[in-house]
Formats: sequence, C-alpha cells, structure tokens
Amino acid sequence: MTSLIKTTVLSLITVFFITSAHAQFLSEQDRAQIMALKKTALSSNLAYEIDESLTTEVGPRRVGTPGDKLGVDWAVAKMKQLGFDKVWTEDVTHYVWHRGTIEARILAPFPQKMVAIALGGSVGTPKSGLNAEVVEFANFAALKAAAPGSLDGKIAYISYRMERKINGAGYRPAVISRGAGPSVAASKGALALIIRSVGTDNNRLGHTGGLRYKDGIAKIPAAALSNPDADLLSNQIRRGKPVKVFLKLTAERRDDTPVITHNVIGEVTGRTHPNEYVVMGAHLDSWDVGTGAVDDGIGVAITLAAAHYIANLPERPKRTIRVILFAAEEVGLVGAEEYVRKHEDNMVNHMIGAEWDFGTGRIYEMTPGVGPSALNAVRALADLLAPLGVSLSPKNTAKGQSDMSALGNKGMPAINFEPDGMDYFDYHHTQNDTLDKVDAEALKQNTAVYVIYSYFAAQSEVDFRK
Amino acid sequence: MTSLIKTTVLSLITVFFITSAHAQFLSEQDRAQIMALKKTALSSNLAYEIDESLTTEVGPRRVGTPGDKLGVDWAVAKMKQLGFDKVWTEDVTHYVWHRGTIEARILAPFPQKMVAIALGGSVGTPKSGLNAEVVEFANFAALKAAAPGSLDGKIAYISYRMERKINGAGYRPAVISRGAGPSVAASKGALALIIRSVGTDNNRLGHTGGLRYKDGIAKIPAAALSNPDADLLSNQIRRGKPVKVFLKLTAERRDDTPVITHNVIGEVTGRTHPNEYVVMGAHLDSWDVGTGAVDDGIGVAITLAAAHYIANLPERPKRTIRVILFAAEEVGLVGAEEYVRKHEDNMVNHMIGAEWDFGTGRIYEMTPGVGPSALNAVRALADLLAPLGVSLSPKNTAKGQSDMSALGNKGMPAINFEPDGMDYFDYHHTQNDTLDKVDAEALKQNTAVYVIYSYFAAQSEVDFRK
Repeated sequence: MTSLIKTTVLSLITVFFITSAHAQFLSEQDRAQIMALKKTALSSNLAYEIDESLTTEVGPRRVGTPGDKLGVDWAVAKMKQLGFDKVWTEDVTHYVWHRGTIEARILAPFPQKMVAIALGGSVGTPKSGLNAEVVEFANFAALKAAAPGSLDGKIAYISYRMERKINGAGYRPAVISRGAGPSVAASKGALALIIRSVGTDNNRLGHTGGLRYKDGIAKIPAAALSNPDADLLSNQIRRGKPVKVFLKLTAERRDDTPVITHNVIGEVTGRTHPNEYVVMGAHLDSWDVGTGAVDDGIGVAITLAAAHYIANLPERPKRTIRVILFAAEEVGLVGAEEYVRKHEDNMVNHMIGAEWDFGTGRIYEMTPGVGPSALNAVRALADLLAPLGVSLSPKNTAKGQSDMSALGNKGMPAINFEPDGMDYFDYHHTQNDTLDKVDAEALKQNTAVYVIYSYFAAQSEVDFRK
Repeated sequence: MTSLIKTTVLSLITVFFITSAHAQFLSEQDRAQIMALKKTALSSNLAYEIDESLTTEVGPRRVGTPGDKLGVDWAVAKMKQLGFDKVWTEDVTHYVWHRGTIEARILAPFPQKMVAIALGGSVGTPKSGLNAEVVEFANFAALKAAAPGSLDGKIAYISYRMERKINGAGYRPAVISRGAGPSVAASKGALALIIRSVGTDNNRLGHTGGLRYKDGIAKIPAAALSNPDADLLSNQIRRGKPVKVFLKLTAERRDDTPVITHNVIGEVTGRTHPNEYVVMGAHLDSWDVGTGAVDDGIGVAITLAAAHYIANLPERPKRTIRVILFAAEEVGLVGAEEYVRKHEDNMVNHMIGAEWDFGTGRIYEMTPGVGPSALNAVRALADLLAPLGVSLSPKNTAKGQSDMSALGNKGMPAINFEPDGMDYFDYHHTQNDTLDKVDAEALKQNTAVYVIYSYFAAQSEVDFRK
C-alpha cells in the first residue's frame, strides 16, 4: 500500500509539474493545436508520398549531375505546392567529379572478380589500370603505423569491419579509413587504397562516400569493396601467398572546374515574429548510386510534411518556420557552410534548429543544446513527445546533426532527435538506398515529432539561446 | 494420474518400438557408429571449410566459363584428398552462352537507371539497344491472356512478386514468368520481356536463372529487374503516362557451339555390396554472378563431408556411398539427364538417393519416396534424426530434389530433406550468393543428417525399391 500511495503522489506531482510546465509555454489552445497536429501527422501518408515523389520523379541527386538540378526544381515546386509562404534558392559552388567505371579483380593466387565502388572524389588510376600486390591492414591505426616507403608499388587494403550500433557509433572508427586513409596510404608510398566498405550489411554492393585528400600528398585512387568481397580478399590473403589485384578506375576529378548547385529554402512566415526562425534541415543532394530515399529523402519528407501541416492551419504560429534543404552535404557540408557564410550576421535570429539525416527507424531520444534558462521549456517539449516513445537525454550538448552542425557551431541552439539507426548503415551510400527501405509507419512518428517540435518552438516564444 | 499412466505406457511402447525398429535394421555396433558419426559431424567445421575452399579458390562456376573447369579439377582433387576410393568424371555437353553486359534505363516520363540482369540463355538486343514503351502485367497469366499482336513493338513487363515461404513454395508461381515468359511475350509481338526478379529480397541486385525458348517462336531478349527497380518502374507506370525504357543486352547464345563439362563422381566403396549405391547429390556448377556458396556450394560441402566421415571409419559400410556432383544443373538438369542416359541400365542398383540444392538453414523435415516394405526402415531412420529436429512427413511421394529427380523419374527411391528456406530466395542466382550467407552451425546439422542417412542406408541392407 505504501508504495501505491507513493506512486500516486508522485504521479500527481508529475502531472502537476507537466501541466504547469505546459501552461508556462503554451496556451490551452496551443496545446490542443499540437494534439491536432500530432493526430494529423500520425494518420497521414504525406511524408512517405513526398519521398516517393522525390525518388520516383527525380532519383539520384549527386552534385553536378542532372538529378541534382532536377532535385532543386522539384524541391522549389514541392514547397510551393505544400503551401510555404516564401521559397527561394541560394547558390552553392562545388567542383566537377565524374565517378566513371570501376574494375577490381584478384589476379593471383585465385583469380576472381570483386564488387567495388570508387570513393567520392577519388582520382582515377592510369588508363590501363593498376596491377599490384595487396598489403592488408586490420584498421586505420595499423596503416598509419606502417613505415614510410613500406608500401612503394603496393595497394594498401584496410579490412576493418564497421560495428552495428543503434546510434551509429560504429561509423566514426570505420569512416576514418575512407576520409583520411587515401592520403595516409599515399604517404607510405601506396599506389592506391582499397577499404572494406563502411557498412554493416553483407550485400554485394560497395558503400561510397567522400574522401579528403591532404594538401601536399599525392592523390591516389581509392575504392571500397563490398563486405563479401572484402571477406574473399582477406580469405585469399590468409593463405599466405602474395595476392595481386587489378584495379581500374576511370574516375575524374576536376578541382578547378566549378559546378553551381543550390540550397533550397522555404518559410512558413511567423505571425508576430517573422524574423525569428525555427529551423528544420535535411539535405537534398544524395550519392549517385541509390535514389537517396533514406539519405536524405526521409529528411526532406519529414521536414516538408511537418511544415505543411503548420502551413495548413488557419493561423500562422508566432515565429517563422524555416526549412533548409541543403545542397552538397555528401561532399562535405558544402551547402551548410555556404549558408552559414551568407547568413552569419543573421545567425542570432535562428532560434533553434533540428536536422534529419540519420536512420529509417522511430525516434527514441532527444538531446538538446540550449541555454540553461531554456531547459524547462525543453522538458515541457519532451513531455509532449514522451507518448511517442521519445526520451529526453540528460545531456545538453547538441550542436545540431549533419548540416545543422555548421549552424550550431556558429551559436544556433539545436535539438538532435535520435532515431533507431540499427540498419541505417546496411544501405548508406549504396545502390540499395531506395524507397522500399523507408519504414512508412516510423515516418509518421518522425513527422509527428518534428511538427510538435517546430510548432512548440515557433509558438512558445522561448529563448533557446545560450 | 490416469493421463500420466497413459503417457508412461505410451512412452514405453514407443521406446520399445523404436529400439526394436533399430534392432531390426542395425546392430548395436552400427548404432554406436552412427552416434559417433553424428558427434563428429556436429563438432567439425569440415563442411564449412570445403565451401570456403570452393568459393575462395574457384568462385563462380557457370557452364562454359573458366570457373566451371577449375571447379571440376577442384572437385576431383578434393574427393581424393577426402579419402574417396574412386573418383572419376563423365562428359556432359552444353552450348555456348555469353552473358555480356546489360543497360536498362527508364527514358520517360522520369529518366532513371535500373539494375537488371540478363536471364540465362537470353539472346541479345540489337547492338544499338531497344527503345520502346513498356506494358505491365500483374502476372504470367495476365501476359498469357493478352491478345496476339497487342504487344507489337512493345516491351512486356511482368511485375509479379514472389512470396516468401519456408519450403520455397513461392518459387513455382513466380518462376514461370522467367522460364516460359519470353516465348509467350514474343508470341504476342513483344520486342523483349522484363520481369521482376524471382526473389524475396529488397536488394538492388537482379536474380538471373534459365529461360526456355519455345521452338518456332522468335527468341526475344529477356531480363530481370531487381525488386527495388521493379517498384520504381511500376511506380512510374502507375502515374498513367506512357513509360519508355531503353534496354541493351550484349548477350550471345550459340546453340550450335558445344561446350564440354563434367559430372564428378566419387565413391566410398561398399565392403560387401560394392555394386549397390547409396547416392548423395549436389550440383557443382553455379551461376556466374555470385560465388555459388549457397547454390550449390552447401550441397557440395555437405555431401563431401558426410562421405569423408564414413571414408574415415576403420571399416567401410556394406554398400557403396556414391557422391555425384552434377554439371550444368542451372541450365536445366543437363548433367543429371546425361547421368541417367549413361547409367540407365544400372539404375536399379541405385538403392536410394538424396540431393541438397535448397536452403541455408537447418533441416526440419524428411519426405521419403520408397517402396511400402521400406517404410518401417524409414521410420527407424527418422527416429535417429528426430533429436536433430527433423520430423517425418506422412507423405511417401519424394522423387528426389533437383538433379536427383532425373534419377527418381527412372525409379530410384529417394529421400528429400527439407531445410528452412525462408531466406534462400533472398540470395538465389544473385551476386549475393557468397560465403557469408552460409550458416556454419546449420551446416553441421545438415551434414549430421546426411551422414546418418547415408550410413544407415549403406549398412542396413534395406531394400528401398518400390
């Protein structure tokens, strides 16, 4: 009995706190509005339909490809159609890169074809390809520890396998091989770098993704093997005889040839504070191999649908909802950095921002990065999201995910919404990033979270700044 | 209490029946031998190691390719190494087919690349490719019902999706589009046939597999789209505008140019009845796109390992264990039919046969196809297999799976062992048929079942014939 009474008393206290927490930030009418928005988001297929439209009518959207241009036109038209008050584009400049074709074969001791994919930005091999012995490294640190000159005339191969984690924490220790590996291998004399794909699947599809050449070091070609092909190569190496590989990439990188693309920005203009922005972000570009349904069609879909539900209300909320669909994220947050350059003077009016660029699953946690005085408002928001299965992280460290980190680094408060990313790296940056991977039911929950977040932040007038 | 007594009495009766059932067919020493063989199979990695060797050192083994020849050499050497008493090859003739390359693109209304694969045996398109409107059919029956001439100048497209079933029962209604579809489409005037892959996965990899052109009907090119690409094509068609596709196959079929390959046969010679054969079969060839680790590397591995365990015993069992690794199964049981032609006079000495050509999972059921007088022996065998999770089907209708059906059709008794095939058609006939898909633990159970089956049939002198 005692424990029952305790529980009851605690529940009453909790209810009181929450009600008062809400009351502090939102009127009863606002709360009813939020409940109605949530109901709409949970019962509508709109987000899925947006992603279906983007992937069916546009498809892959790598910077500098026809799909990228089509995607920008699609986004402008879609925002207008969805009732945004203002829609515009801002130029972003990148350089020309052609993926070309790839051939990867084991020549000896046991000739076999391998499935591989060029890393984004890689230079090509000589026209006739490379034919060299492979030296295997268990991970990036092992490659880094190799003696200078020890890879002269060789192909370096990092066989490290990414670990599967709900929050994608396996990515960082794996992706360093992709980003920094090529220049480290070159510094030891390697002719080329092969890595095991940064991915958690067992499909015969390589995972692409950007590399970063270091200035002053030779640019060498770099490619990722599918996981089964990395197994095959390692199994041949394990037999102890020299393993020779043929590698041919016709990729072409033209650092000096500019390509113009565009951030696409849309607003649902605030009723009383039109110059204060509650920001939702996603990136519009994708790699060229899948249709970018997950990365980041889901983000495009969620943010457009959430803003649409608010645009559809009889009355605009107090602040402006700004959706930024960033260009050229995949090649290194290029669109986000351009946005920050252009809007730096105005960054103080970006009241808070949230990006979606991870996961196909339901959101299970939110992490704020706000001023201490805004923490009670965050708790009130968290309370509205709790019935959707979202818990509040005890940390207050968020800087914004992906593109939004560029704005976060300039002082914009942020909230990170963390979805279940258990299978995200099965499809990430592969041909397999297609509409069938999108969980239509999870998408409803995700959209409900984003619409609640954005309406709450736009209507409550909370100052989230630090 | 009554029910407890009943149960106890029934248990005692069961134990008595089983013990006497065993005693009828096997000596106590034989039963101990079987228990020892089972223990060996369940604790050894040999079958997995055989599959690793085949897929690492040989790889894909399509008829007429260098890998097919390498596979035959590998099998002969492996059988000798594993202690078979006799090993030989028998010629099998097929014709030349080159897969060539494939390009499949939607041209309108929304241009996008598609992932597709040529069906095995398909002719090529004209050199410049085909550019035609697509007509979608929900299934093979709908295509068959189309009016003659209604597909003149069009590409037919069957979008039927295969169902996932534990016993692979979804295959038959799907695969008819692949086998018979091309000639039916041609008979309605189509320039080419595209099908949704016969597969249960959502990977961006097409499923190949043999087609059968009908005599007297134009041979048209035929290809399978990956499931996500079939979704994409259907989603574009659903918008109601004409959908145009570009299709180019450089495949080449030379019916008049023979290719010689080989059935590889090995025996552990019987001690007292060397001319009575207990047969285990699998096929050595594979499609050219994966490494054939599952289809049928698993069958090769299980049958070789099971025979090896028996060859390793101090004493040969009474009858001969014959392992047949069939050639050219994938192109239509060509090796099996050649075997039957060559051994027809001797088929009566093939006492019983079992093939492995399905599934990566544990065996859960066995179905006999034996004479009525052998059913008690089958029950005794089933009792030995029950602790491994194998139940006995009430049917007595098995004719032998895959290749073994050619022998079964000539009167050889058979046992079908049914593994869990839930995910088999995720990988079947795709690049994804690689070693990582093999369940090493299930392989131990499978090998234990095959070694018990073959030792039981070779040592018990049961006449399984009808």
